[in-house]
Amino acid sequence: MAPRELVVLGTASQVPTARRNHNGYVLRWDDLTVLFDPGEGTQRQLVRAGVSAPSIDRICVTHAHGDHCLGLPGVLLKRSIDQASSPVTLHYPEQSRAEIAVLRRAGLPAGAPPAPCVEAPVDAGVEPGLVATDAAGRWRLLAAALDHRAPAVGYRLQESDGVRMLPDRLAAAGVEGPDVGRLQREGRLTLTGGDGRERVVRLEDVSAPRRGQVFAFVMDTRPCAAADALAEGADLLVAESTYLHPDSSLAEAYGHLTARQAGELAAKAGARRLVLTHFSRRYGDDGEVFAREAREVFPDVVAVDDLDVVSVPPRA
Amino acid sequence: MAPRELVVLGTASQVPTARRNHNGYVLRWDDLTVLFDPGEGTQRQLVRAGVSAPSIDRICVTHAHGDHCLGLPGVLLKRSIDQASSPVTLHYPEQSRAEIAVLRRAGLPAGAPPAPCVEAPVDAGVEPGLVATDAAGRWRLLAAALDHRAPAVGYRLQESDGVRMLPDRLAAAGVEGPDVGRLQREGRLTLTGGDGRERVVRLEDVSAPRRGQVFAFVMDTRPCAAADALAEGADLLVAESTYLHPDSSLAEAYGHLTARQAGELAAKAGARRLVLTHFSRRYGDDGEVFAREAREVFPDVVAVDDLDVVSVPPRA
Repeated sequence: MAPRELVVLGTASQVPTARRNHNGYVLRWDDLTVLFDPGEGTQRQLVRAGVSAPSIDRICVTHAHGDHCLGLPGVLLKRSIDQASSPVTLHYPEQSRAEIAVLRRAGLPAGAPPAPCVEAPVDAGVEPGLVATDAAGRWRLLAAALDHRAPAVGYRLQESDGVRMLPDRLAAAGVEGPDVGRLQREGRLTLTGGDGRERVVRLEDVSAPRRGQVFAFVMDTRPCAAADALAEGADLLVAESTYLHPDSSLAEAYGHLTARQAGELAAKAGARRLVLTHFSRRYGDDGEVFAREAREVFPDVVAVDDLDVVSVPPRA
Repeated sequence: MAPRELVVLGTASQVPTARRNHNGYVLRWDDLTVLFDPGEGTQRQLVRAGVSAPSIDRICVTHAHGDHCLGLPGVLLKRSIDQASSPVTLHYPEQSRAEIAVLRRAGLPAGAPPAPCVEAPVDAGVEPGLVATDAAGRWRLLAAALDHRAPAVGYRLQESDGVRMLPDRLAAAGVEGPDVGRLQREGRLTLTGGDGRERVVRLEDVSAPRRGQVFAFVMDTRPCAAADALAEGADLLVAESTYLHPDSSLAEAYGHLTARQAGELAAKAGARRLVLTHFSRRYGDDGEVFAREAREVFPDVVAVDDLDVVSVPPRA
């Protein structure tokens, strides 16, 4: 099984620095690869991180501010140069159709068709709504409307709940080999014992429920119910933390979180690991000041740098 | 007097690498600052190079391929964030009006006016034509049509010819103090000698002609007469060299120069210093292979890296 991990491409907020590129985050989730918020320079950061542009299945844009989307034309161009075999699916707030249309044409000859992608704009409310599902039923992608200065959405990737097979019970029930998979798929199995009598083994007799893992991506927003709902029970929660607590009035004014508010979001949601990013350059280049503030209210905090890779915590 | 120098922001061709950002070049020429070909990531490279976005007076785009212009929206946005006091002037091939219009809207809210700039598209022919002049008459900016797969122009910044005052002759003619400046401005001076007789000193009697310095910028093109004309007598010539000589058929097919052709361009033009850039990643990350090839035909070659600063050679 491929790892479930976040590859961080950029961690600046409005203005990039020598250390921090504009936003960009790749989530690798089994055989699914999602690019969130391709800020300017994302195609180069993909090269640096060793992520191939054609490997991206979906691009999720939270909002149409430049630091979250100006890298989209370059990523689409790079996919074309690298001969991606199928168009990427593009999610973004439906209020930003016009802005996205411009970005799909940027860098292309005037008469050419826009860069190939399947647009799937998101009509989001406060409650997370369904954006996409896996054909095999393994996950659902949800989105909810955040509270920023522009129409903005956050995302939540929710693995389907499943079961964990219990080896002792399987052995006691005499289920082995290909029968295990069949039982998982079909929910029940009819076996013929040595005495010729049939008996039924039900999945719930030999397994325990396994809660699906959750990844949540909460960018530019004030604290809000939608952020809480997206983050609920997340194994890995990525949250912007543009400001520190002493500047919470600026955070409120510009529609952002402080590091402490990001920590509070993680704590309230019962998240397992919090990734902080989208740092204002006003505090210097060391993300540790943000992590320290968030750790006052939540323990497992990583303030990421560009090209960091953060694992989704293994199942508890 | 401020230095005359080229600040290199990016040196990749179509695909950026860990070492090379997409194109971007800042020419500092006395009190004039010109940004050439803002590829993606230019706003961040400006930060790295310590060049303020509002200090840019003119942006010269050679053509509308993404690697030469996708950084334009970000540069315009950064100028706005940094509260540039006056709009930048934007030059580009006039056939690319539609592509530039898209870039001026990228990253902005749908209803907002396009990013402020004064558009001055270039209607270029093979002979370098005038694009802009300095109000004080100190320089002229010229452009000519290159031979690429898209409408493309090269640029030439030409200092006005002037004079160099000769101290010995000034002393012999009895011209000193404020009279020196007046003679330079007015071309002649009437002095009254100790004997009460008037005599005329002409500028040409106490000075020697001084040829203006020249900067030339020749991006994506096959060898052509326009490139020759732009480069003629250049003190500093920037030329793309996407390929090496063994791949000259690729260079021809895609409308590019080999390093040797760039060297031949410099030699034929009688240039003084050649800057090579826009390197294909197929040859690895070391620009020295390009410099070596060009040096077979021209001596003063610099294969630049990102953030290099190259001086315009001092007057001979």
